[in-house]
Amino acid sequence: MDAVGPDFSKGAAWMAGEIVPIADAKISVLDWGLTHSDITYDVVHVWDGVFFRMDDYLDRFFESIAKLHLDVPQTRSEMREILHAIVARSGLQRSYVSLVASRGVPGIPGSRDPRDCINHFYAWCVPFVWVFTEEMVARGVKLMVPDFVQRIAPEAVDPTAKNYHWGDFTQGLIAAKQAHYDNTVLVDTNGNVTEGPGFNIFMVKDGIVRTPRRGMLEGITRRTAIEMCAACGIECVEEDVLLAEMMEADEVFATTTGGGVVAVVQMNERVFSNGVAGPVTSQLSQLYWNWHEDPKFIQPVNYQVSGE
Amino acid sequence: MDAVGPDFSKGAAWMAGEIVPIADAKISVLDWGLTHSDITYDVVHVWDGVFFRMDDYLDRFFESIAKLHLDVPQTRSEMREILHAIVARSGLQRSYVSLVASRGVPGIPGSRDPRDCINHFYAWCVPFVWVFTEEMVARGVKLMVPDFVQRIAPEAVDPTAKNYHWGDFTQGLIAAKQAHYDNTVLVDTNGNVTEGPGFNIFMVKDGIVRTPRRGMLEGITRRTAIEMCAACGIECVEEDVLLAEMMEADEVFATTTGGGVVAVVQMNERVFSNGVAGPVTSQLSQLYWNWHEDPKFIQPVNYQVSGE
Repeated sequence: MDAVGPDFSKGAAWMAGEIVPIADAKISVLDWGLTHSDITYDVVHVWDGVFFRMDDYLDRFFESIAKLHLDVPQTRSEMREILHAIVARSGLQRSYVSLVASRGVPGIPGSRDPRDCINHFYAWCVPFVWVFTEEMVARGVKLMVPDFVQRIAPEAVDPTAKNYHWGDFTQGLIAAKQAHYDNTVLVDTNGNVTEGPGFNIFMVKDGIVRTPRRGMLEGITRRTAIEMCAACGIECVEEDVLLAEMMEADEVFATTTGGGVVAVVQMNERVFSNGVAGPVTSQLSQLYWNWHEDPKFIQPVNYQVSGE
Repeated sequence: MDAVGPDFSKGAAWMAGEIVPIADAKISVLDWGLTHSDITYDVVHVWDGVFFRMDDYLDRFFESIAKLHLDVPQTRSEMREILHAIVARSGLQRSYVSLVASRGVPGIPGSRDPRDCINHFYAWCVPFVWVFTEEMVARGVKLMVPDFVQRIAPEAVDPTAKNYHWGDFTQGLIAAKQAHYDNTVLVDTNGNVTEGPGFNIFMVKDGIVRTPRRGMLEGITRRTAIEMCAACGIECVEEDVLLAEMMEADEVFATTTGGGVVAVVQMNERVFSNGVAGPVTSQLSQLYWNWHEDPKFIQPVNYQVSGE
């Protein structure tokens, strides 16, 4: 134990075999993960000392790596160990934990051939990130659907390979903040709702739940919501959802690893369910946290492996 | 002079007020420039000790910064000094010099509000990068136009704000390399040619030059090519160009800061101008390098400011 050692309380990262404080976790300005956004990632969370659905997140991470034609040397079980080790080192009981695979820097300086790049894996954890602040979660979220920007089409960038191409989201988000909304959701070129930055979106109408099927990330929390609907006997359909249809919803909610099932009480001018969380949203939101006690989904962090 | 000091011969970077060897130039894994590709950049080149059109690149860089709603503290003249200083420190006579403005890391950890991020500027230089290798330039470039990926639409991400959203390009590039092409060019959703990764594209038919007008970066070398056409009395039109039209061209060429005007001798199965650079391409290609001696366009690097 070293009282004046590095501070891991703000987070820890595994970079090239070493665990470092999050403030020291950096990548080269020449890394294609940065200069070409040629990178994929996933986010698993730790809640009250347990990882939730870690293997589902790992499955998707390896699928994303394959879709981008990346190749990293770490095995799945090595990654699992790394995630335990960084969370243990940080000591965090509630954490946002990110796995990343990047194209890397070309071994031949200046090369424009992706085959020359040295792909690499890294991981980091920080205190739990609320995609919507706790205050927003408590009062319900207000979303802006801007008319001047569309979601990047799946014909250009496959949204099912989790990626950092967020330029469209950021423009929407800035406009939303300027207009005093909390966040943004984008439509596709046909006017179908897609997703927001870090969350999927659902609507409830006449007791039936609907969520977009295409043009967005297939979120693990989205999947959890679909499974919770089944467990509760609520009909849930994955299909194209026009913005105009969503505007007629009884309830709208968002799903995200960074907060679970969150009530959306307003989109643009339209207020849903009298501005408070509706009954289906409330039921799923509560059940989501209950499932964090189900052994089927959880894996306790091994806080003994921090390797001090 | 310090014979065992840091090695700047591979490149130099200006990071937060310090000039460091390129190998030490890194950014945080939490920087939104990485995690949201919320970043813009520009590239100016040094050829035989002179910057080419530096003020045009700086103009565009500031336009990109404004389009992304970024705000960095450095003034234009400070940036100019920084570029001179890093190239001087590297000693490079031919260099690829990059300016970057990034959203940065949120000052409030975990915040999802772009207004909380600390925007920052950095710059780096490396030995001149040939977007097409010198061997490709000499024999003419072979491009693949894939049918399974489209360019990110301007309705999603504005391509005139120079950005790192290259996921579409990378998928095309990997397919091109696998099929033994040199590089890729993407079409938009309407079948119009857009651009390739780091270059614009032109066609020549019956003595008239045409280049896409929309859905691509407005390259400075593209502009130089248009200006060279005017100087040579060659008609040049900016307009939508269908891939099917380009396939009927007499000549095709690419323009890039990383190599100037480069003959494209093949796209998919189609061979242009008998597989060698055509007359218009050759004329513009030569003139491009001649203009590097025109005082109107050049600014000698001040190699005295390296500040050892």
